Amino acid sequence: MVQVNVTLTQTIKKLLEDKKYATLRDILITMMPYDIAAVFEELQDEKMPILFRLLPKELAAETFVEMDEETQKFLIHGFSDSELKEVVDELFLDDAVDLIEEMPANVVKRILRTADKDMRKQINELLKYPEDSAGSIMTTEYISLRPDMTAEMAIKRIRRTGVDKETIYTCYVNDENNKLIGITTVKDLLLANDDDVVRDLMEENVISVHTLDDQEKVAQMFSNYDFLALPVVDNEQRTVGIVTIDDAIDVIQEEATEDIEKMAAVLPSDKPYMKTGVFGIYRKRVPWLLILMLSATFTSTIISSFDAVLSQLIILSSFIPMITGSGGNAGSQASVSVIRALSLGEIEFKSMFSVLWKEVRVAVLCGITLATANFFKLLFFDLRTYSGPGDPIMISLTVSLTLIGTIIMAKVVGSSLPLLASKIGFDPAVMANPLISTVCDSLSLLIYFAIATPVLASVMP
Amino acid sequence: MVQVNVTLTQTIKKLLEDKKYATLRDILITMMPYDIAAVFEELQDEKMPILFRLLPKELAAETFVEMDEETQKFLIHGFSDSELKEVVDELFLDDAVDLIEEMPANVVKRILRTADKDMRKQINELLKYPEDSAGSIMTTEYISLRPDMTAEMAIKRIRRTGVDKETIYTCYVNDENNKLIGITTVKDLLLANDDDVVRDLMEENVISVHTLDDQEKVAQMFSNYDFLALPVVDNEQRTVGIVTIDDAIDVIQEEATEDIEKMAAVLPSDKPYMKTGVFGIYRKRVPWLLILMLSATFTSTIISSFDAVLSQLIILSSFIPMITGSGGNAGSQASVSVIRALSLGEIEFKSMFSVLWKEVRVAVLCGITLATANFFKLLFFDLRTYSGPGDPIMISLTVSLTLIGTIIMAKVVGSSLPLLASKIGFDPAVMANPLISTVCDSLSLLIYFAIATPVLASVMP
Repeated sequence: MVQVNVTLTQTIKKLLEDKKYATLRDILITMMPYDIAAVFEELQDEKMPILFRLLPKELAAETFVEMDEETQKFLIHGFSDSELKEVVDELFLDDAVDLIEEMPANVVKRILRTADKDMRKQINELLKYPEDSAGSIMTTEYISLRPDMTAEMAIKRIRRTGVDKETIYTCYVNDENNKLIGITTVKDLLLANDDDVVRDLMEENVISVHTLDDQEKVAQMFSNYDFLALPVVDNEQRTVGIVTIDDAIDVIQEEATEDIEKMAAVLPSDKPYMKTGVFGIYRKRVPWLLILMLSATFTSTIISSFDAVLSQLIILSSFIPMITGSGGNAGSQASVSVIRALSLGEIEFKSMFSVLWKEVRVAVLCGITLATANFFKLLFFDLRTYSGPGDPIMISLTVSLTLIGTIIMAKVVGSSLPLLASKIGFDPAVMANPLISTVCDSLSLLIYFAIATPVLASVMP
Repeated sequence: MVQVNVTLTQTIKKLLEDKKYATLRDILITMMPYDIAAVFEELQDEKMPILFRLLPKELAAETFVEMDEETQKFLIHGFSDSELKEVVDELFLDDAVDLIEEMPANVVKRILRTADKDMRKQINELLKYPEDSAGSIMTTEYISLRPDMTAEMAIKRIRRTGVDKETIYTCYVNDENNKLIGITTVKDLLLANDDDVVRDLMEENVISVHTLDDQEKVAQMFSNYDFLALPVVDNEQRTVGIVTIDDAIDVIQEEATEDIEKMAAVLPSDKPYMKTGVFGIYRKRVPWLLILMLSATFTSTIISSFDAVLSQLIILSSFIPMITGSGGNAGSQASVSVIRALSLGEIEFKSMFSVLWKEVRVAVLCGITLATANFFKLLFFDLRTYSGPGDPIMISLTVSLTLIGTIIMAKVVGSSLPLLASKIGFDPAVMANPLISTVCDSLSLLIYFAIATPVLASVMP
């Protein structure tokens, strides 16, 4: 795909320069909004308005939604009020709300001024919902049916009113108080007889979400139940809108990116990597680097306080990175498994003990494997020609025992911290690998020196 | 949700014991397949067949699809051939293929034997496609229209044939050679006049995927273009099937989990965490732990070979974990940003130089911040009462300069390795953080000693 777009972008640039507008229009109407938006991002600023004006109204609005913030801002800046109105009028309500949430105050003002009264009212309603709530990603444009309609009437109603709705395929049956009493689909209506009544066709066990539910929960429900849309209700069970699957997919992608970023100790960002400036990236990364650097003071302090042991047997210091590294890796394996299982809703805090019991058994197996491999490696390879102080067997044994202890400790820490975080209402993913590594580093050094001190005392009088 | 299910599960268990089958059936038909499947996983084995037989045919099949492998295997084992046939007949084709891919050979044989001839033929066709290809996740059940039909005829055709199709909302227009020439939607057909012709209603610029395209690419297209279904074509551009959005969502979730696992040096698994046994988890984790432990030999060797420097100034060894840790964190921040941007299709190999240039600038900023903080922290805190050999200012300076060098090196390594991996056709996510950390550990020690050696020589005659 990308390959094709690149060449196409060059063609479009050339045509723009040569002012072949009719040809350009013919090309553009064959393209998908996402791809047209990608072309805009490659253009020089002054060319953008020209190209945008070549797009038919509906395609223009669809393309506009796919553009990045900067391009949107630039285009709006150049729009006359009537041009802006044309775009805004074509937007689906939820896209208009997304746009408004991203734009600076003066642009928002212009958008709201140009929107027609009815749309402005609905936008203002939607803006009231907290960020990341079901209310904030829903649209109020959906097909509403009455229970006493026949299938034929229902389909007529859909044909009459459907053109403005984002999805017509799931229809919501509301009673006279707008309370949600059932859903039906165009598929069911089409496959029914003309005089079947909606009440008999509809599914009464409707799964709905509340306006204030977390968008991550909503997205997870799409993936569990294979819905195309999900109704959103208020405290009185009245239908106030629907979330459509395209928005759910965006949430799923966003949340996965956020989890991944947090696990790598990057503050989550809502902009794509290539769109974020150097300072933006710096600000997302430096806080955790600083915190983790400062918390490494503990490890330094531990090492310093065992100076006496280390200076007697300097060879021990060369295994420190291997031990802390193995502990960090073992810990992050466990934490990542648990964090992901938590976000997919596979486990919750009450499974803590079965998780810990599982991790301890895995840790014993991993620890023994690593310790055995390490013991023979040290004895027959690294320390084969060792002539310093101490007995190679005892040194190898010390390091190997430390590895077993470290890995068990790391798996327990790695799996329990995210669960504890979820329990106290924190995001488990902030128990990021680096944070767990820092904890594991200190603890594994303590284990190391706790084992090394008596062993040393026995061999070095 | 989960809370509710748990209580419901208890109720269902009680009703099963009391043999209140009519009540049970009434409850079950109000539930979603995903939730019923969750109940099965909490049941004792001998209760499962009883509960399953209470489900109406269609719901039984839908629930069956949502169950985990073990439960499916157990149930099939207890089915008579006619019971198995009932379930298999109700399955959508792509679900049947998924099932067959997971089951052991003897079960597959039974399933294929009970499936009717036509279904068996189609299943065998689909099984030929490689795992993780578009062909392997598609279904061959879709609505096919001819270009010369009227909207009225098209809707009649959908009403006649739609009941067996997984989705009826996107319809594919094929010519007499079954070549895909356009798509249209039920929405467009319903909103059109009865005698409009499909040829005039259809969208001719169809985006399709090839049977052998990677499922990750397919899923990404759903998220870019907001499709509900995507046609799959063969080498001759003939429509052979469609991928539906519910399967695309599953792929998106799976791929995100896989990326996260690889980043944490866990071999990817296709089973949920709680469903995987201790040995299963051990096998996924121990290979990387071993590899990384063995590769830590480099760091040990480097430290050993600078024994002379370290034993002169043992305080230097206490900063090793902080330096390698900061390098590892900085590197994994960069690699995660790049890996995620690669999997979302935001960047590709040719952006390598702009990525590196960005990372170097971010690294200089992060490095200077960390070095400054570290310099004053060492001088006024850690080394305030230092009375050992060497000048505290020179020691602080050595460590701080090392930090700048380390962070620049780590960001360059962290961002370039995933890009290089993608270039040579490897999965960028295998350039996992721990692997990058190991590389960064060795390099940061080399930087440390390269800086420390001359500084030391100057202060310690």
